Amino acid sequence: MSALNLQIRLAARPQGTPRPEDFQLVESPHAPLAEGQLRVRGQYLSLDPYMRGRMNEGRSYVPPVELGAVMCGEVIGEVLESRHPQFAVGELVAGDLGWQTHPVTDGRGLRRLDARLPQTAQLSVCGMPGITAWCGLMRIGQPKPGETVVVSAAAGAVGSIVGQIARLKGARAVGIAGGADKCRHVVEELGFDACIDYKGGRLVEDLKAATPGGVDVYFDNVGGPILDAVLGRMNPFSRLPLCGLISQYNATEAYGVKNFRSILVNRIRVQGFIVFDFQSDYREAMGELAGWLAAGQLRYRETIAQGLRAAPAAFVGMLRGDNLGKQLVKLA
Amino acid sequence: MSALNLQIRLAARPQGTPRPEDFQLVESPHAPLAEGQLRVRGQYLSLDPYMRGRMNEGRSYVPPVELGAVMCGEVIGEVLESRHPQFAVGELVAGDLGWQTHPVTDGRGLRRLDARLPQTAQLSVCGMPGITAWCGLMRIGQPKPGETVVVSAAAGAVGSIVGQIARLKGARAVGIAGGADKCRHVVEELGFDACIDYKGGRLVEDLKAATPGGVDVYFDNVGGPILDAVLGRMNPFSRLPLCGLISQYNATEAYGVKNFRSILVNRIRVQGFIVFDFQSDYREAMGELAGWLAAGQLRYRETIAQGLRAAPAAFVGMLRGDNLGKQLVKLA
Repeated sequence: MSALNLQIRLAARPQGTPRPEDFQLVESPHAPLAEGQLRVRGQYLSLDPYMRGRMNEGRSYVPPVELGAVMCGEVIGEVLESRHPQFAVGELVAGDLGWQTHPVTDGRGLRRLDARLPQTAQLSVCGMPGITAWCGLMRIGQPKPGETVVVSAAAGAVGSIVGQIARLKGARAVGIAGGADKCRHVVEELGFDACIDYKGGRLVEDLKAATPGGVDVYFDNVGGPILDAVLGRMNPFSRLPLCGLISQYNATEAYGVKNFRSILVNRIRVQGFIVFDFQSDYREAMGELAGWLAAGQLRYRETIAQGLRAAPAAFVGMLRGDNLGKQLVKLA
Repeated sequence: MSALNLQIRLAARPQGTPRPEDFQLVESPHAPLAEGQLRVRGQYLSLDPYMRGRMNEGRSYVPPVELGAVMCGEVIGEVLESRHPQFAVGELVAGDLGWQTHPVTDGRGLRRLDARLPQTAQLSVCGMPGITAWCGLMRIGQPKPGETVVVSAAAGAVGSIVGQIARLKGARAVGIAGGADKCRHVVEELGFDACIDYKGGRLVEDLKAATPGGVDVYFDNVGGPILDAVLGRMNPFSRLPLCGLISQYNATEAYGVKNFRSILVNRIRVQGFIVFDFQSDYREAMGELAGWLAAGQLRYRETIAQGLRAAPAAFVGMLRGDNLGKQLVKLA
């Protein structure tokens, strides 16, 4: 085994887009395990937009990452050494182990991988992104057959699943993504009914054309001008699960939402959420997702950066929308 | 009886604040009634913020008032003449009869006044404004005992009831109103726990001081910068019944809501509504409101303009916040 643990720590709180100097690379020899600990050889690190919020000071879902601490993030890997009664060497596990190659943990929050599912799928379609998509869409969006569901960041880890679930539930799925390649992927590979390129310069017109009956559910991952445009198309009694505001995470000045009036006039229900709010639904969500995946009814893509050193640039790229599907970092 | 019916019609669609020339005063002799019609001698006309929306073209809750048509509005009065089988001369009735002194109607949507309740209260605390307050607060806001409820336009017809219901249900009530006199009225007469003067120039600081435990329910009637300020104080899993956006009704450019992120981070439920969405709750709402009123537990004020000719100026004044409590026009 490698004698060193490579970590990426938070060196400074970014102003706007994170710069290389906001991260610090630290190599340290493996410390001996204490009783009750185990060491994991990380295989994949998941990069997710929520991490940008954790780099800031101040109130959010959970406390921010401390300066000098390892960046938070979910890792899958193999147990390399164990002094923990419930985890044996060689088992495959996943948990919030941070941006590092050889995390040491006391096992809290750690789960075993499901051998029946593809390994990396457990960080995407059958992991947090998939469960996030399912809970937000089914519990807040509540699409009915024949309704129109619009989702932003439609080529991303969550959005790509939202539209596919919508279709499996009998709704029309319209994606919004950046660039012709992504839009083609969303329609041709993921099977959405339509996908709008927000970089095409005709967002309002294209949205109108793609939603002739208006919008019944808008699953929003991005906020900003796209949110304003979709608000203008929403139907009476429509629902807006608010999952993310990626367009705002690196913004130094908040975008002002101008179409708030549509919420009043159309009696829209807007509900912010994070996946942890729906823990009692995880089992049902995972059951459906795993079933669809096994039946070949859910497709997913991964964008994989090579080596932990590539994580900061991959993370910034993901916030900019460079990735297709789930952004991972291969650790070993 | 007066031989003339005085009407105010919509002459032009206002840009921004309505001007006198947007209204047209028309006097016409009484036409004979057709079979099934009745004539009402109007006593009071209710002026409400929603009417500003009806003066615009384009999609809203309901179609706009047509150019040249009588302005919409609820009237209470006495049946003066009747060729309608269900309404007799002398009965007191209320309905959407428009800005006119002697409306003629086929009786659709007309209701009899409840003789046990004060007459004008049936246009305010025991009418649409009171029911709006009850439904939005109880069905969307769902305050729990000990929680903090904030309401904007707290000295107005709806807001003044929202805070009193909140207290009757065991919550803390914090109002937001314009000017020291209104704030004093809200605290001393209506019994709110606190009231913030948004014209005092210290909205954010005053709001923080008045809501040390954050905000659990924000019943919004105004939108704009006040909405942004309250969003910044809202607690996780708080609720935001969106009843109105008075600050925006005369605006020619929409205000951009900058604190939208709070909806995500705090998992706020925002729900636009109008009272018609809750028809199945009217009976329960009216029962509680009438009971509280009879028991002296609900207080209300009225601002009464004299004569139909005064209605346009009173309407513009209400949109600006000149009124205390329910804005009425005495017709006869």
